[in-house]
Amino acid sequence: MNCLVLGGTGFIGKHLCKRLAEENHNVRILGRKKIEFDNIFYDNKFEFVQQDFLQIDDFSNLLDGIDIVFHLISTTIPSTSEIDCVFDISSNVISTLKLLKACVKMKIKKIVFISSGGTVYGIPVQLPIPEEHPTNPICSYGIQKLTIENYLYYYFMQYGLDYTILRLSNPYGTGQYINKNQGVIPIFIDKLMKNETLNIWGDGKIIRDYIYIDDAINGIISTINYTGKYKIFNIGSGEGMTLLEVVDSISEILGCKYNINYLDARKIDVPVNVLDVSRAEDNLLWKGRVTFEEAINSIKLLC
Amino acid sequence: MNCLVLGGTGFIGKHLCKRLAEENHNVRILGRKKIEFDNIFYDNKFEFVQQDFLQIDDFSNLLDGIDIVFHLISTTIPSTSEIDCVFDISSNVISTLKLLKACVKMKIKKIVFISSGGTVYGIPVQLPIPEEHPTNPICSYGIQKLTIENYLYYYFMQYGLDYTILRLSNPYGTGQYINKNQGVIPIFIDKLMKNETLNIWGDGKIIRDYIYIDDAINGIISTINYTGKYKIFNIGSGEGMTLLEVVDSISEILGCKYNINYLDARKIDVPVNVLDVSRAEDNLLWKGRVTFEEAINSIKLLC
Repeated sequence: MNCLVLGGTGFIGKHLCKRLAEENHNVRILGRKKIEFDNIFYDNKFEFVQQDFLQIDDFSNLLDGIDIVFHLISTTIPSTSEIDCVFDISSNVISTLKLLKACVKMKIKKIVFISSGGTVYGIPVQLPIPEEHPTNPICSYGIQKLTIENYLYYYFMQYGLDYTILRLSNPYGTGQYINKNQGVIPIFIDKLMKNETLNIWGDGKIIRDYIYIDDAINGIISTINYTGKYKIFNIGSGEGMTLLEVVDSISEILGCKYNINYLDARKIDVPVNVLDVSRAEDNLLWKGRVTFEEAINSIKLLC
Repeated sequence: MNCLVLGGTGFIGKHLCKRLAEENHNVRILGRKKIEFDNIFYDNKFEFVQQDFLQIDDFSNLLDGIDIVFHLISTTIPSTSEIDCVFDISSNVISTLKLLKACVKMKIKKIVFISSGGTVYGIPVQLPIPEEHPTNPICSYGIQKLTIENYLYYYFMQYGLDYTILRLSNPYGTGQYINKNQGVIPIFIDKLMKNETLNIWGDGKIIRDYIYIDDAINGIISTINYTGKYKIFNIGSGEGMTLLEVVDSISEILGCKYNINYLDARKIDVPVNVLDVSRAEDNLLWKGRVTFEEAINSIKLLC
């Protein structure tokens, strides 16, 4: 299959490109800066297009010869989306609308969009959260993801553009960019190993669903040949951990002590988010396999 | 109360401004072109600000001294929203985000937003449609309305900006702009009275909920002092009519015959849309009072 990975140089994107190459797909990567993959084998499998997603008005050339598009780009993360909602919408939604228009023109077979299982639902009224749960995001990031989801449905209904949405929980693993504030787990590991104080917003009791990157990638890969009736899947561990439990577990696995600096709780953080992943398990024949302990041990080895 | 009506020169806006003036509210109107109201009494009650909503970057001056904002502006209608989704989002959502930011700064007490009961739900899975029904719009217009709804909730959660959303069905009545394609009823009346052929997309069996403008205005007015727990209300007749029933009824009331030119069905039209209005009846103490026959008769008198 000829694949285009938008955001192929990011944390999830790099892992995805590697897996696609391993499974003998051809991979075109869009990224702002060329990066070296850590194995020359992969580099030879990739076609790299160095362009800024936001600067592209017509995606036709980029889509030429492509079967399936993996759209992993977000110009914001939940905490930065608050700073400027106008930028959040105009950069993410409007650029994606230009992409969708070109996908119809270029007869793309399918688009796989990485949405946010942690933010689109808002404050849950049911746990674990199934895909039919009401969507009432309390951060701009969740709203822009949901708006793109709505346009995917619209493009499917109007133009027959096939799609799958993966509402991912919090992925973590090797290769996460600590200085971009992507995910608490690598930040905690890094700080614990340097014996630095951990910053936690709130009392540390907010509950989140964390998924190891290999499991997340398996989820994405499992959508490629899926042709069933569902368009939206939660992908997560299906289990919740408080921030304090995360810290405790990591410190125990690493054998380090820790100090926490408690900061004011942020209004954008829902108190709890745990995904019901049974739809993906039943229909994508996917299952998360890596335990938290195994994952932390494998990250530790690379630190 | 000091009111700002965005879109006060449009069909719904003009009726709303009149009612607000009759109830002794002070009314500031934003519009692109000044229009004369048909009674000098009203003109003296209004402060008119001639500006283009899309050209305003900072809404602070416009909001100075205002208690409540009625946001009735949409730069598109369902059929035109398809032409350019980028314009649909950038004009409606982004301008509204600038408005909301200024509402927080200027400590606005409440914003009342006119959303679209006919498009935000998409293809109904339940009839009549209650407010908790899933929202899966199949036209861009519905998506932009829903995105603004999501941001209203977000601004309420983050900044305490109070709001009410009215998901209006299809309002009709005197003063509707026939050449702007706003609503089939005045178009049908006009064509029947001129003995012209009616154009209908599809087989005429799509079912819609039509609400007379006076009932819609009563619904909007009833939100001013509402402080209860609900943020979203359907406002409609709660009854469905097929397009052919609409034509039959009008022709019977007017005593005219008709010819129909059937055009291809449009993909943006859901097959049926009828709103459950019991939440508004129970909580806003509002009720639609004008029958279809009374309404058509009153429009006929003014044609």
